[in-house]
Amino acid sequence: MHAPVRAALKSIVGSAHYRDSDGDLVPFSRDATPLFSARPEAVVFPADTGEVSAILSLATRHGVPVIARGAGTNLCAATVALRGGIVMALTRLNRILEVAPAELLARVQPGVTSSALADAATDHDLLWAPDPGSRTAATIGGTIATNAGGLRGLKYGVTRDYVLGLEAVLPTGEVLRTGGRLHKDVAGYDLTRLLTGSEGTLAVVTEATLALRPAPQTSGTGVAYFSDLAAAGRAVTAIISSGVLPATLEFLDRSCIEAVEAFAGLGLRLDAGALLLFGDDGEPDAVTQALARMSDACAAQGALEITRAAHIAEAEALLAARRCALPALSRLGALTILEDATVPRPRIAEMVERIEVIADHCGVTIATFGHAGDGNLHPTCVVGSPDDTDALAHAEQAFKEIFNAAIELGGTITGEHGVGAAKLPYLPAQLGSDQIALLRRVKNAFDPAGILNPGKLGS
Amino acid sequence: MHAPVRAALKSIVGSAHYRDSDGDLVPFSRDATPLFSARPEAVVFPADTGEVSAILSLATRHGVPVIARGAGTNLCAATVALRGGIVMALTRLNRILEVAPAELLARVQPGVTSSALADAATDHDLLWAPDPGSRTAATIGGTIATNAGGLRGLKYGVTRDYVLGLEAVLPTGEVLRTGGRLHKDVAGYDLTRLLTGSEGTLAVVTEATLALRPAPQTSGTGVAYFSDLAAAGRAVTAIISSGVLPATLEFLDRSCIEAVEAFAGLGLRLDAGALLLFGDDGEPDAVTQALARMSDACAAQGALEITRAAHIAEAEALLAARRCALPALSRLGALTILEDATVPRPRIAEMVERIEVIADHCGVTIATFGHAGDGNLHPTCVVGSPDDTDALAHAEQAFKEIFNAAIELGGTITGEHGVGAAKLPYLPAQLGSDQIALLRRVKNAFDPAGILNPGKLGS
Repeated sequence: MHAPVRAALKSIVGSAHYRDSDGDLVPFSRDATPLFSARPEAVVFPADTGEVSAILSLATRHGVPVIARGAGTNLCAATVALRGGIVMALTRLNRILEVAPAELLARVQPGVTSSALADAATDHDLLWAPDPGSRTAATIGGTIATNAGGLRGLKYGVTRDYVLGLEAVLPTGEVLRTGGRLHKDVAGYDLTRLLTGSEGTLAVVTEATLALRPAPQTSGTGVAYFSDLAAAGRAVTAIISSGVLPATLEFLDRSCIEAVEAFAGLGLRLDAGALLLFGDDGEPDAVTQALARMSDACAAQGALEITRAAHIAEAEALLAARRCALPALSRLGALTILEDATVPRPRIAEMVERIEVIADHCGVTIATFGHAGDGNLHPTCVVGSPDDTDALAHAEQAFKEIFNAAIELGGTITGEHGVGAAKLPYLPAQLGSDQIALLRRVKNAFDPAGILNPGKLGS
Repeated sequence: MHAPVRAALKSIVGSAHYRDSDGDLVPFSRDATPLFSARPEAVVFPADTGEVSAILSLATRHGVPVIARGAGTNLCAATVALRGGIVMALTRLNRILEVAPAELLARVQPGVTSSALADAATDHDLLWAPDPGSRTAATIGGTIATNAGGLRGLKYGVTRDYVLGLEAVLPTGEVLRTGGRLHKDVAGYDLTRLLTGSEGTLAVVTEATLALRPAPQTSGTGVAYFSDLAAAGRAVTAIISSGVLPATLEFLDRSCIEAVEAFAGLGLRLDAGALLLFGDDGEPDAVTQALARMSDACAAQGALEITRAAHIAEAEALLAARRCALPALSRLGALTILEDATVPRPRIAEMVERIEVIADHCGVTIATFGHAGDGNLHPTCVVGSPDDTDALAHAEQAFKEIFNAAIELGGTITGEHGVGAAKLPYLPAQLGSDQIALLRRVKNAFDPAGILNPGKLGS
């Protein structure tokens, strides 16, 4: 990057918000994805939409890559500066501009964390439904860029279902306003949803209008143990077929149960092959009825044991078991590679069996947990050392086979984490070459100079 | 259109499914939108995806417009052959391919009617949520193309929230598969949602995988009368603020109440300024509680009278009052122009007042009903004769002012009907010139020859 571009960046954001020293660049060389790292040439922290627009115009004129990012909690190397250039951190745009209970919406800047928005909503007896695992750090900008999911997807959907409108800046500098404050709006192509999940490759979101819901009156949680995952899978099918659309339907396999119990000492049963966590929220009688139906479905599928949380603290402990699966597994090795292959719900057990066979044959350890209600699996590979190139090669081979298995079973290579740099090589197998060519044409319609997050989606 | 193109069309679909006589073209010269009419040069009825692809490739090679359509129930002149060419009617693609209760989805061809899908879902105790007024005739292809809404939008969302995957043919003939059977899938740009609502200008949908929901156990309906629409608007805000997200929240203004009562003789109260129809569905106790809260909110806002339907037949009668608003108004003149300007919910009363002032000052009669929960208004202008050019000019002026008022109040020129040819002239005021230019580039990424539904969205 030439000196005049650096000088222009400094003059746009002010010297205090421009960094290019080695020490300043290191933290912006990676995100939460293991094994991916690349050094940007500068990091800037714009204060507002005008500065974002000026930075992007400058970058387009000079053909310099721009990688917009928030907290960098993504797990697909979506914010790694593969081709150098400018990292544009949107963390100063961190204001909740408005919570409007009568309209069931909030208007926020992209640097607000998902938890901060959830708390602001709770203050008004409202619910911000998207619930990614990284919610205390993850920003709304990243949540939108990755169309993040989470534990409540089956009943409440994903981020895209809650994005009403966006202010977004094109790489060429134009500021667009898509959608608005309305739940119904069909004026023009649905750019709001197209930008959601576009992983920072089409435009930079500088403001979002997001739908909230009335907070549920109460919630209930239970846990069922099964001898194996196939039985748990049948219970999931039985639950859905019984007419319940639960807020929570999560599972852990045997390895995850062991790791979580060793990590958190929650008193989980260690002789089970699978644990199913189920729950619902809403009006008290409806919750009672849903929990009873789910318990019955688990019993009918031969659950070893079914426990209903008697109070909130017990429910929180059960949810904690699921939420700490990743940190618990991380303790088992120096490196934890977490994936999110997803299959149609009735094929979960089959997919988990395929994962076990693949792990065996590739000689790696894979534990699987995930969102059973969505078919969204998180097979997690633990590697002893990041320097063990043999082990890494085996893990890579295993995931390649897992992605192929997911596609074969009518699923996807990524349910909620995204494509980024990590899964781009697998995307053609999912979408086919005609669709990949179309994605490139769409990318070009937004970003003719190809400066936004190059080497990712649309490349 | 040259003879060789006609011959090629015949050879693709077979002579029995090719028409170009005057008598055959007349019914395909219009859709449900008054005042728009244009004669296509041929109508073809393809049997499958292969024929759709062959027709589109042929049309792209020869630069001939193609207008895909189903029943033509749209209200924005989205399927009028403005520049001649080929109308491609997808009514032979009318099979429900699959209903999968364990996956809460159905796979259908585009010519299936919305009602047929709803009935098939009901057979499995499931709900097809989108509920456009034209559902007995409207096809799923058109429902997707217009991202149709309906009476249940507030609680259940719109069509886009239920489209999981599409098979779609590009104007250049390539067959794409977007999304799939999963509720969570972030592999690539969200083409599924981009095609939804694209009004037949980007690709032709030949198969859709659609999400269903468990059918609600029961439902309840009530009606409240108010002295004026402002009071009804305050009741809507009070209902939403009380934590209820109702399945039904519809209103009629005084003129609509009178027209409906004259048409259907339902015993509606004629001294009221506004009628609010409210309802919810779900688990019985939850419904009872929601109806009680809504009644209380109406009472607190000074409702003249509140009645709860005692049984299903009474509830159906109340819903019929809302559903027959359009046919009832249609009796008042030879021509009924129905619009769907939409504003943020708290501004409904203000918008209705603006509409009344505009109607007065333009010298036209406008009655307004609509989806109060969504802010989705249907101001309806009744004109005595389609030959009264003065009256038509006044109506056009009134709607122009209504659209401007909707934009001023933070709303949209179309909440659920679409842009089509009818509202394209008003779109730049809504989206701005930068976004219009971007829509054209997106259109070009899909349809480089510009053959799909020219003169509509993206033109």
